[in-house]
Amino acid sequence: MFLGAAPREWRASLLTTMADSLESDREGLVEIAGAETALGSARLQSELTRSILQFRLFAEAVKEGSFLEATIDHASGTVDAPLPEIRRMLVPVGPVAVFGASNFPFAFSVAGGDTASGLAAGAPVVVKAHSSHPLTSQRSFNRLVQAARSAGSPEGTISIVYGHQAGRDLVAHPSIKAASFTGSLSGGKALQAIIDSRSAPIPFFAELSSLNPLVVFPRAAEARSVEIANGILASVTGSGGQLCTKPGIVFLPATNEGRKLAELVRRGAKKADGHALLNKRIFDEYVASTEATTTYGADRGGFWVRPSVSSTSTQDLAPSHTREVFGPHVVLVSYTDIGKLSDAILGLSDSLTATIHADKDDAAEMRPLAAKLAGRTGRLIFNGFPTGVRVSWGQNHGGPWPSTNSQHTSVGVSAMRRFLRPLAWQNAPQSVLPTELHDLDSDIPRRVDGKLTLPATA
Amino acid sequence: MFLGAAPREWRASLLTTMADSLESDREGLVEIAGAETALGSARLQSELTRSILQFRLFAEAVKEGSFLEATIDHASGTVDAPLPEIRRMLVPVGPVAVFGASNFPFAFSVAGGDTASGLAAGAPVVVKAHSSHPLTSQRSFNRLVQAARSAGSPEGTISIVYGHQAGRDLVAHPSIKAASFTGSLSGGKALQAIIDSRSAPIPFFAELSSLNPLVVFPRAAEARSVEIANGILASVTGSGGQLCTKPGIVFLPATNEGRKLAELVRRGAKKADGHALLNKRIFDEYVASTEATTTYGADRGGFWVRPSVSSTSTQDLAPSHTREVFGPHVVLVSYTDIGKLSDAILGLSDSLTATIHADKDDAAEMRPLAAKLAGRTGRLIFNGFPTGVRVSWGQNHGGPWPSTNSQHTSVGVSAMRRFLRPLAWQNAPQSVLPTELHDLDSDIPRRVDGKLTLPATA
Repeated sequence: MFLGAAPREWRASLLTTMADSLESDREGLVEIAGAETALGSARLQSELTRSILQFRLFAEAVKEGSFLEATIDHASGTVDAPLPEIRRMLVPVGPVAVFGASNFPFAFSVAGGDTASGLAAGAPVVVKAHSSHPLTSQRSFNRLVQAARSAGSPEGTISIVYGHQAGRDLVAHPSIKAASFTGSLSGGKALQAIIDSRSAPIPFFAELSSLNPLVVFPRAAEARSVEIANGILASVTGSGGQLCTKPGIVFLPATNEGRKLAELVRRGAKKADGHALLNKRIFDEYVASTEATTTYGADRGGFWVRPSVSSTSTQDLAPSHTREVFGPHVVLVSYTDIGKLSDAILGLSDSLTATIHADKDDAAEMRPLAAKLAGRTGRLIFNGFPTGVRVSWGQNHGGPWPSTNSQHTSVGVSAMRRFLRPLAWQNAPQSVLPTELHDLDSDIPRRVDGKLTLPATA
Repeated sequence: MFLGAAPREWRASLLTTMADSLESDREGLVEIAGAETALGSARLQSELTRSILQFRLFAEAVKEGSFLEATIDHASGTVDAPLPEIRRMLVPVGPVAVFGASNFPFAFSVAGGDTASGLAAGAPVVVKAHSSHPLTSQRSFNRLVQAARSAGSPEGTISIVYGHQAGRDLVAHPSIKAASFTGSLSGGKALQAIIDSRSAPIPFFAELSSLNPLVVFPRAAEARSVEIANGILASVTGSGGQLCTKPGIVFLPATNEGRKLAELVRRGAKKADGHALLNKRIFDEYVASTEATTTYGADRGGFWVRPSVSSTSTQDLAPSHTREVFGPHVVLVSYTDIGKLSDAILGLSDSLTATIHADKDDAAEMRPLAAKLAGRTGRLIFNGFPTGVRVSWGQNHGGPWPSTNSQHTSVGVSAMRRFLRPLAWQNAPQSVLPTELHDLDSDIPRRVDGKLTLPATA
């Protein structure tokens, strides 16, 4: 039996069994991840909760079935120009390679959303474990394999490989039909080069860096400077700033309230206790990118660093300010007028997120900027903060380059679409069609002769 | 006003106006295309009809609105762990580059499906005209521009460029956000290389060649040898064999009926009158690929060639048999048993289409092969022929490599998806949201808190 050919109900139950299996080892998983990542118990507990939720949400989506985009066009036309019957749905692309990320030992690693969405799509998953948390990876893998076995899933439903070379071999392997990756631009480009040299290249869904601009409008700064400053600090320093959605550049008005807000952020960063970063590469790059503006707790040993704030203005914005620095670093940019703000923002790379803090009276100036930012990001946030990505049906985590994943999300239900492709059957006998395309009353939404129809039970 | 921000109703009417404008110049367009392509009036009439239908079908889809995948997740969660509101829909990627193809002066050129689906998605389109039919391109463009002006569409809704270098400059231009191309593998790879060297690479949807295997099972050959032979001949020689869905390799049983069928194809090809190919490159490649097996009507001048049939067996299958030859050429391969057939087919490149002719009594042997072919193609056809692609909601024209367009179709309603990307709004004021995501009763299908809902009028 192939995973993709198994009944949807069964595939949903496989995902639920995996969720249960992870839940049953919660304390063990969190403990081992704590030791390997220094991310702290509270964060790791909530990350594991999210991972488990993802398996359950995908199980729900698999049962609901509209992700298949099932479509039936009955035969029509005339005797002279007959139009054949076409039935279409999305099918799994085939086995996929998933690269674990350093900064999410659960939610973007072995038990992460890429694994869950791949299996939900019906694609066997081979995970390349991240070298920053091999034991967490192995323990997560053991839970998932045990669940797969107890659900009677075929051997190879999920596999794991370790090490740099294994990752390279994986994306080069002809049986692998898509790959997902969250990590550095250089790492992503190296994998892309291997994929490009395959005799049959495959889709590569990568998130490679993101600056995540945040703009505070004058009246918002006036009304909520303390609240916004605390929010920025929490968003920049949480998880040691090692989140792809961390706001890396913040635009503040050159008003008294804007300056006060900047000062609150700088003071808060100075008082903050700092954080141990995930690995030596991230630590070295953080030190190299920020040494002019911060001091390190070298006495604390390991990869311990303090938050760092760099301040400038739209006039003095330099290339060094507009590169992602992974870790608890933020660039504060003061702007004097909306024109300069707009120019500065449109000069940045596109981002996974963009955030606007604006009050009602800022609306006239805010709206044109929001429209421009909409063209440059995958998620537009209002009066909130980009970190803490809700896992839901409508979430979008992706966006224009430097995500190669520019037309799909890696978080939320439609993440499954990355591992699916359309297949059309023309005049096929029912015996070769998937049950979802049979003439029977359907239990999933389908489009029949152009008309979207819901199942009778819905 | 931006095209993508215009109301859906208006965008639908723009597409309808374009369809009407093409229809109003039908005779002129067909005449000029006939002179440039030698494809003949009947074929060109039906191709133009298809192009016009495409604009009308996309207009219908734009009005219907489910292509937007509009999704609303209301705020929820707890006071301690609030979940923000997320609203998502697909938005245009931005201006797109469309490359006209030599073999479809209408349906895959200026007035083709890529143009129609791009505009339907809300993306301004820049077409690179194919050098094989510049006058047809210009005349089609004039019709579309006139329609755009009369509909009050923004300048730049549709543009045209000519020449090799202009095409290269086009995909390199930072304002272009996606590109589509139907043509040769070498041409596609050259464009891909330019795209890869952009500072921000873009999605490239290309169809680069396809072998389109067709398999005849023993009992089908027995029951319908004349019908199948005639169908193969028509499918191989129609439009001079210059279709990306032409069945390039046909597997026939090594039975008396199979041999009879092969003989009917060979005799029919010998009697056929031949065809003028589209341009010198196609002519030269056809001659170079087939000279051992056919004679040319050199006396007819121009790019005139005769159909060509090459015969072999699964044992003697050589690399020269399994490369696409553009033009009226087919390779007939006899097989002695299903195991050898299966091995031979799985040794081929993936294809846009795969076709099976099987009768009821072939079913037991046919089904496993159909399952294997399903993994290697974008469209699986039963007891029919792959040429003549129905334009409908469920059509899929794409598939695994050598289409880079492996997860999307270039024909049918969902072709729009290539020029769309998801965007999520978090806690956005209604004033910045598209109307489709407002709290009002919707006139399009939407997913609200996970539940797919149809408009009340549906």
